[in-house]
Amino acid sequence: MSESKDTIDKKNANSMWGGRFSEGPGAVMQEINASIGFDQKMFREDIWGSRAHAAMLAACDIISAGDRDAIIEGLGQVEAEIERGEMTWDPAMEDIHMHIEARLREIVGGAAARLHTARSRNDQVATDFRLWCRGKLDALDGSLKILQGALISQAEKHAVTVMPGFTHLQTAQPVTLGHHLMAYYEMFHRDRGRLADCRARMNECPLGSAALAGTSFPIDRHMTASAMFFDRPTANSLDAVSDRDFALEFLSAISIAGIHLSRIADEIVLWATTPFGFLTLSDKFSTGSSIMPQKRNPDAAELVRAKVGRFVGALNSLLMTMKGLPLAYSKDMQEDKEPVFAAVHDFELCLAAMTGMIDDLKPNAEAMKAAAGGGYSTATDLADWLVRVLGMAFRDAHHVTGEIVKLAEEGGVQLQDLALADMQKIEPRITDLVFSVLSVDASVASRTAFGGTAPDNVKAAVAVAKENLQ
Amino acid sequence: MSESKDTIDKKNANSMWGGRFSEGPGAVMQEINASIGFDQKMFREDIWGSRAHAAMLAACDIISAGDRDAIIEGLGQVEAEIERGEMTWDPAMEDIHMHIEARLREIVGGAAARLHTARSRNDQVATDFRLWCRGKLDALDGSLKILQGALISQAEKHAVTVMPGFTHLQTAQPVTLGHHLMAYYEMFHRDRGRLADCRARMNECPLGSAALAGTSFPIDRHMTASAMFFDRPTANSLDAVSDRDFALEFLSAISIAGIHLSRIADEIVLWATTPFGFLTLSDKFSTGSSIMPQKRNPDAAELVRAKVGRFVGALNSLLMTMKGLPLAYSKDMQEDKEPVFAAVHDFELCLAAMTGMIDDLKPNAEAMKAAAGGGYSTATDLADWLVRVLGMAFRDAHHVTGEIVKLAEEGGVQLQDLALADMQKIEPRITDLVFSVLSVDASVASRTAFGGTAPDNVKAAVAVAKENLQ
Amino acid sequence: MSESKDTIDKKNANSMWGGRFSEGPGAVMQEINASIGFDQKMFREDIWGSRAHAAMLAACDIISAGDRDAIIEGLGQVEAEIERGEMTWDPAMEDIHMHIEARLREIVGGAAARLHTARSRNDQVATDFRLWCRGKLDALDGSLKILQGALISQAEKHAVTVMPGFTHLQTAQPVTLGHHLMAYYEMFHRDRGRLADCRARMNECPLGSAALAGTSFPIDRHMTASAMFFDRPTANSLDAVSDRDFALEFLSAISIAGIHLSRIADEIVLWATTPFGFLTLSDKFSTGSSIMPQKRNPDAAELVRAKVGRFVGALNSLLMTMKGLPLAYSKDMQEDKEPVFAAVHDFELCLAAMTGMIDDLKPNAEAMKAAAGGGYSTATDLADWLVRVLGMAFRDAHHVTGEIVKLAEEGGVQLQDLALADMQKIEPRITDLVFSVLSVDASVASRTAFGGTAPDNVKAAVAVAKENLQ
Amino acid sequence: MSESKDTIDKKNANSMWGGRFSEGPGAVMQEINASIGFDQKMFREDIWGSRAHAAMLAACDIISAGDRDAIIEGLGQVEAEIERGEMTWDPAMEDIHMHIEARLREIVGGAAARLHTARSRNDQVATDFRLWCRGKLDALDGSLKILQGALISQAEKHAVTVMPGFTHLQTAQPVTLGHHLMAYYEMFHRDRGRLADCRARMNECPLGSAALAGTSFPIDRHMTASAMFFDRPTANSLDAVSDRDFALEFLSAISIAGIHLSRIADEIVLWATTPFGFLTLSDKFSTGSSIMPQKRNPDAAELVRAKVGRFVGALNSLLMTMKGLPLAYSKDMQEDKEPVFAAVHDFELCLAAMTGMIDDLKPNAEAMKAAAGGGYSTATDLADWLVRVLGMAFRDAHHVTGEIVKLAEEGGVQLQDLALADMQKIEPRITDLVFSVLSVDASVASRTAFGGTAPDNVKAAVAVAKENLQ
Repeated sequence: MSESKDTIDKKNANSMWGGRFSEGPGAVMQEINASIGFDQKMFREDIWGSRAHAAMLAACDIISAGDRDAIIEGLGQVEAEIERGEMTWDPAMEDIHMHIEARLREIVGGAAARLHTARSRNDQVATDFRLWCRGKLDALDGSLKILQGALISQAEKHAVTVMPGFTHLQTAQPVTLGHHLMAYYEMFHRDRGRLADCRARMNECPLGSAALAGTSFPIDRHMTASAMFFDRPTANSLDAVSDRDFALEFLSAISIAGIHLSRIADEIVLWATTPFGFLTLSDKFSTGSSIMPQKRNPDAAELVRAKVGRFVGALNSLLMTMKGLPLAYSKDMQEDKEPVFAAVHDFELCLAAMTGMIDDLKPNAEAMKAAAGGGYSTATDLADWLVRVLGMAFRDAHHVTGEIVKLAEEGGVQLQDLALADMQKIEPRITDLVFSVLSVDASVASRTAFGGTAPDNVKAAVAVAKENLQ
Repeated sequence: MSESKDTIDKKNANSMWGGRFSEGPGAVMQEINASIGFDQKMFREDIWGSRAHAAMLAACDIISAGDRDAIIEGLGQVEAEIERGEMTWDPAMEDIHMHIEARLREIVGGAAARLHTARSRNDQVATDFRLWCRGKLDALDGSLKILQGALISQAEKHAVTVMPGFTHLQTAQPVTLGHHLMAYYEMFHRDRGRLADCRARMNECPLGSAALAGTSFPIDRHMTASAMFFDRPTANSLDAVSDRDFALEFLSAISIAGIHLSRIADEIVLWATTPFGFLTLSDKFSTGSSIMPQKRNPDAAELVRAKVGRFVGALNSLLMTMKGLPLAYSKDMQEDKEPVFAAVHDFELCLAAMTGMIDDLKPNAEAMKAAAGGGYSTATDLADWLVRVLGMAFRDAHHVTGEIVKLAEEGGVQLQDLALADMQKIEPRITDLVFSVLSVDASVASRTAFGGTAPDNVKAAVAVAKENLQ
Repeated sequence: MSESKDTIDKKNANSMWGGRFSEGPGAVMQEINASIGFDQKMFREDIWGSRAHAAMLAACDIISAGDRDAIIEGLGQVEAEIERGEMTWDPAMEDIHMHIEARLREIVGGAAARLHTARSRNDQVATDFRLWCRGKLDALDGSLKILQGALISQAEKHAVTVMPGFTHLQTAQPVTLGHHLMAYYEMFHRDRGRLADCRARMNECPLGSAALAGTSFPIDRHMTASAMFFDRPTANSLDAVSDRDFALEFLSAISIAGIHLSRIADEIVLWATTPFGFLTLSDKFSTGSSIMPQKRNPDAAELVRAKVGRFVGALNSLLMTMKGLPLAYSKDMQEDKEPVFAAVHDFELCLAAMTGMIDDLKPNAEAMKAAAGGGYSTATDLADWLVRVLGMAFRDAHHVTGEIVKLAEEGGVQLQDLALADMQKIEPRITDLVFSVLSVDASVASRTAFGGTAPDNVKAAVAVAKENLQ
Repeated sequence: MSESKDTIDKKNANSMWGGRFSEGPGAVMQEINASIGFDQKMFREDIWGSRAHAAMLAACDIISAGDRDAIIEGLGQVEAEIERGEMTWDPAMEDIHMHIEARLREIVGGAAARLHTARSRNDQVATDFRLWCRGKLDALDGSLKILQGALISQAEKHAVTVMPGFTHLQTAQPVTLGHHLMAYYEMFHRDRGRLADCRARMNECPLGSAALAGTSFPIDRHMTASAMFFDRPTANSLDAVSDRDFALEFLSAISIAGIHLSRIADEIVLWATTPFGFLTLSDKFSTGSSIMPQKRNPDAAELVRAKVGRFVGALNSLLMTMKGLPLAYSKDMQEDKEPVFAAVHDFELCLAAMTGMIDDLKPNAEAMKAAAGGGYSTATDLADWLVRVLGMAFRDAHHVTGEIVKLAEEGGVQLQDLALADMQKIEPRITDLVFSVLSVDASVASRTAFGGTAPDNVKAAVAVAKENLQ
């Protein structure tokens, strides 16, 4: 007649979970708990680890050679199936490890059951994730190298192209575009160093740490480590399964590199404005407007600039997740992968886009040179000349220069267009040799001390860089 | 005979882009630029906005009634197609707005071309995103309310269940489990307040702000605003297209709520440990071990605790992306959606999981009470008695209490098990009335000042809370 | 003869702690544990709370009227002493509460010992910190209002001053400077709303929650709440002592406001560049160069832009600190104050600096107008005219406009300088009425739909804003 | 008669700035612009740089030997004065560089004016800050080493002390306390590696990059670099003055190390709870309660746990500040120092406090062992025995073990207390040899594979660690 209390409760329960979770707690738990949605990305790494583990178990007489061969062949089949898209991903089977293990069991039966000896999911996932990160560290090093190559190539072309050097975004002194681009070469050089250090530090194999305490099986962890090109096995099993430093360090390195990308991207946006007019955007990395056919929007540069937020967000995410976790493995750590996967994906994309933009750079040398010559940008050259040639003290030379700049400003001319006589009214010892430093070309040519903007320096830096990139 | 320079260049170009971008710059640009991969989530909001816009354009005699009807009917068809999964998403067609517009054009022809009058993608996406967020703000308020309901229900059941109250995670004073749970009710109450304030502040309609400057068409922005249940149109077109405060405020509110979730999740993990033993984990939100059938791992609680990292990561991501952007729309802002989508998705999931865990809470009242009685947790009750009954100054009462606790410690007994004579050796005026405050039940019962842990207070708080949730 | 082991151990211990901690563990503990170095800032709030508490205790017959009077008078003396700089801050006495209590005991003796009845440091510090934050919320609301006033005043002056409106930092359509400045008025309006919501939500009094469980003394928490202008006492004692939402919400609001400051600061830096030349920097907020007297660096704007990092840093700091803390009070929470104090200090400073920069804004109207007219910025006006007057569909009008822009570009002229005949070659129905929309002045004047950039709209918005600021 | 408009304006201006800035814009600008409040910390580094620069200028015949000697002697005097606290810090003189230069001019007159040849404040501050960071990197490496020493020493003492190993904070398998502590040794080892890599990467000298473009003076940058023990001069002047990677990388390394500190601190808090009872807190790093003399609050551990928030906050602060800054120097970068100074200060303090806590660790071995034996923690040992001795497949052994655990649970006994006959009912091949692996001592002793928890492994790891620390 009337619904039982139980029925009503069930209904309420269902409505309580709302549409998305209308199936009740089981659906919620499966959705929050299963990692297969993202960790399937590591299927190759998981299979590599299992191959190495099987070979080692056999070498240590823990499983038979027959089992080993069956397992290794079976794993090959599983890998091929996944590559062909034939694996059915099922959230009920939680993660990539269980998917592969279950499929292997279907293929090779009993031998599969022996593969899990002397390991657990805790050391397995730590190994897979390290392998994945290591592969990406290598790939990203390559991408950074290509970006550096693009910078070098443009720097070489523009070793003598003059542009304004800014401080506070105010014209300060002329520099060369080549020198400016080589500043980014240096930044990406440090970025590669950080990635390399991260790789070296993380290249230890957790496999065989088992759940957390190590194992009593007489395994040879050096053998598995070496089979996967790790430098050595990790030294402490508790640390091995609860350490995510490598991911944090990776994200830190990407974040810092992202800052560099955001800076050059910001400059591209700025230089492409009409008032600056320093460059014409490549069609390939900008979008147009049907209504203003001449207009180009620097979309790719803006997106690269924005992405640093994503990198830093990923870093924060994992730092916060790891905060205060007692040893050893806690499920919290499952939240390590998505931020890393997303950041690496976006970082690769940004590097490719920036490489494309640099390759296609179309600087407007005239506009750059004109801007470089404004704002009395060679005033410091004048002051340096007064010091060098007339032997004035630096602070005095500054004062005299200020007076001469004021004179030029009142006359509405640039320094090189002032009459010698006018300058001599302020400082009688000035000779017409001074004109040799007042043009922007003379200015940049003179900055020959190591690291300075002189074209010859730029060419030398390019040569060194080319050698380094070999 | 030999490859042309051009061929070589193309080859190099290809190899430069590597596997993922082997098709060259076009593939890179499409991948970084297209938002259709994620903004398709807003198809209903986009269609809603277009319907409202079409109706308004007709009411203002900017398009004909016939066009309006065709557009609105056509949009209905597009919506149905998308819901049935019939739309083909094509990265070349960038975003959800273009997909819908293009399909509409196929269906209704020329009328579709007139729909875009007096709007642009900049105000359109701002409107869609606000609508999406507003819908989620409402849904999440509902989810928080359900979680509060679960807390209230358990608090009512456990209004008299005694447990240790901790400071520094050291037993300090006995409290009731109901009181403890109601502390979280208060936190989620504030969270709902923050979501409500965010909703009220963001409920202004950007549509009609056009690209950035507003429009010269005689449109009625109040009409579109009202059709989408916005309180009013935004007041400044430049602000309207470049504002993402609503997303930042939403992510802030989620992050703070995430802190609350991390705290209760941490307590569940802690209470479920063997040494604490305060509760038995629900099967529904824990995982077991084939090898240790009695073991339950608090996976869901750990994952909820971890997810706060994701929320805070998303907040940081968008804050950083928005930093220092000049007005008005910049493409950087396209990076606003993914962090919000992901955080909202995970937050919903965490609320559902936490509600399930609270619903299923199986406290071990004996273990809680035993722990509550340890550590001389009623020492402050004794001190308060000395003040209240004997009229001692607070600091003096503290001193006497300290002496009595020392005595109990030396005797290896709890305070309520000390002999009166022993206490009188320290303070002769103590009478046997003192025993009325030395048990944990007496202690909690005595904390009747507003906000205190007394069972009657908890019941009263539950009653108020129930009314609030109506 | 030889040093004893003990002596050696002490030496080692000392050397172990190094210079800074050469006194050993005691020095380390004192330095990490004492908060007096920063919480002395809250001495007025602490004394206010004690006054209210004493008055309430007497009203509830928990202490005598005589004690109350002695305490309140004594507190007045302590406050005066601190204001005169006569208090000696001693890290050994940990925090501001103990300093004031100890000094009060010296002054009034026994009565001071009774003041601590029915409260603890946990509810005391929560009360002090809320009072401090509330005071700053009010002060900052005032500062934001002054900044809004400066924006309104400039917007009114520049309601008709034309400048380029940018998307992607590319000239898109002309807007007015007044409209642009009013966009920031809107942002700061929302910021004030967030601060007000934070204030309303946090305005509950924790005092009387005692250590964590409430109290058995018959206190009147509504009385103390009301004496300190709180809306009500907090409802749950555990929550009251472990809640820092108000600080998190405050820092969120400052961070979002900091984003707005970073945007306008970035624009000031940009507009002050030589290529843009949109404004001349005020001497008061820029620095010069002895060598280039004409040069002005936008230091204040750069620093304001940079400070948003500090705000977001502070927010992250406290979010991370609060993550996963079990109830109730943990010492971790002592790390709440320094980030808030620092962020509030810097935010006040940024608001003052930005107000000064806006007050002193010296726009170069000619440069702005010239830039506004470049890039065929009235192309959308032309398209809109084709729609409005000729009844063309929007997409068709776009196509025709594109053709006309191409024509102008080939001729090297602006749209308004094209011959009618030339336009008619592309679309014969165009009449000379079209010229009424092709100038930048006509363009901005035409954007009269609500929220658009038309001077009349700006004036109306300013009028509304003025009324709101009353 | 009436106040002039000017007077009124001044009044308004004053009231506008409010109390803190009542002196008007000048006070605001000075407060936001001056860095002397914090950069005075780098006075030694600044003087070191000036000494090296003077020596080089003389060696390159840019200044005379007499000037050099006067400058170097004068700098010695300035340094001594600052060390004696005799320097008056004046915000009007902005920064440490100007303070030292001005005082030097007073002392040595004209020679001081020549010191600034071929350098600027931009390369000077970059040099000073690197020197300061490098010094701290070295000091912190020392502090970490001392902390590692403390861990090793305790690990050696507790190589055989058994405790529960946790996953999900559930008892999983027995481990040794020594092994657990050595996990932290490994973490701090990686931290030292990160600091060392940061040091190696940043050890390049920016001095001589001048304002941004390098210099035309024939300086020898290798000489100054070498005089300050830099490995080489920086290669690009634009990069040299605008790079803050070293600070970002430093803060990243501190943040990751802070995560480690937060984990061990959390464990100390947890282990010191009454239910765990794994350790007794040292008096030196805990605080007591006058009312509960037996109570000890783990304040230092909680504060160390909390401080990671500050580290990550500092990292975020600087990342955000650096985002999107165009080259070269911008004033934004002045916001680099305070976050680094504060984080380094707190990190040093945390290391000292943690070292003290480890030194004083008083583990309760009985409680640990009792807890280790609960929860059928040797179930995996049983399963491994079934595999190893009976040759069962891992998954089958798991199943059998699960059955036996169920039996034990039903009987309310631990595994080692089950009768052999009972086990044989489930798996007849089990012999009494099985008991050799069922005790916690046997379990830990058996985990001898590399990295496992066996006491012998711990001792070996300690021996290796000791050698590394030499």
